[in-house]
Amino acid sequence: MANYKHILIAVDFTPETMEITRRGRGLAQQNGAKVSLVHVVEMDVPAYPSDLPLPGELDFSKRLIEHAEVSLKELAITHGLRDAKRYVDSGSAKSMIVKLAEDIEADLIVLGSHGRHGLQLLLGDTANGVLHRAPCDVLAVRIGARTA
Amino acid sequence: MANYKHILIAVDFTPETMEITRRGRGLAQQNGAKVSLVHVVEMDVPAYPSDLPLPGELDFSKRLIEHAEVSLKELAITHGLRDAKRYVDSGSAKSMIVKLAEDIEADLIVLGSHGRHGLQLLLGDTANGVLHRAPCDVLAVRIGARTA
Repeated sequence: MANYKHILIAVDFTPETMEITRRGRGLAQQNGAKVSLVHVVEMDVPAYPSDLPLPGELDFSKRLIEHAEVSLKELAITHGLRDAKRYVDSGSAKSMIVKLAEDIEADLIVLGSHGRHGLQLLLGDTANGVLHRAPCDVLAVRIGARTA
Repeated sequence: MANYKHILIAVDFTPETMEITRRGRGLAQQNGAKVSLVHVVEMDVPAYPSDLPLPGELDFSKRLIEHAEVSLKELAITHGLRDAKRYVDSGSAKSMIVKLAEDIEADLIVLGSHGRHGLQLLLGDTANGVLHRAPCDVLAVRIGARTA
């Protein structure tokens, strides 16, 4: 019985990323679903008395994205997900993940429940708004749970 | 590849209950997991100037629980889940669901993302607290999602 056709795994390269990816891959195998991987670069820019870009901000953001692209590729290879499409962007993780899920017609988002890009972000202060916008199911993986 | 061994499906008998149960059952079949079903009766008791029970409150709660037990049994039969253990209790849905998941050693909670017992309740105002207490993964089923 196939429940899902396209699983979007959202990772943030915290230590739980390996387990989240493994869980998402397992569900994809069970369902014969394709996998996409996403990482959103979030920059905590301190208060700045101007609308001008911070000195070096754009370069720094670009380097973070480039670094994330390499890390995401390594993650995909490690987990046997060479065929997975990989997406790296910058902005608000919750917004970008939801928007990407819409764009690629994912029917399941897999993410960590405790990570920076986990449910606190996806559902935190704007729970109702995001849930009503999310186009699909959301699996929050609990790291350290008893399932092996 | 078995990811989950014991799936707890939390239902509230809103229209989305059928789809949530179907999704949970599908995952259980894929994983060879056993299923438990839970419904928590939540009573919105208005402010009352005493710690005494409201007149008739206990009887009313008892009738709600009895009614829920019948409904949960019908739901199980409808979905071919006669072997599933069924739990009906009263109290705070988020607390009871998390506690039950701990007690029965569930490794996945399946619930609706929009229902009364959905993520608003489970994760709403106390997102961090509940997420840190939840012993397992949580799948929020999006009703009306494109997955059939």
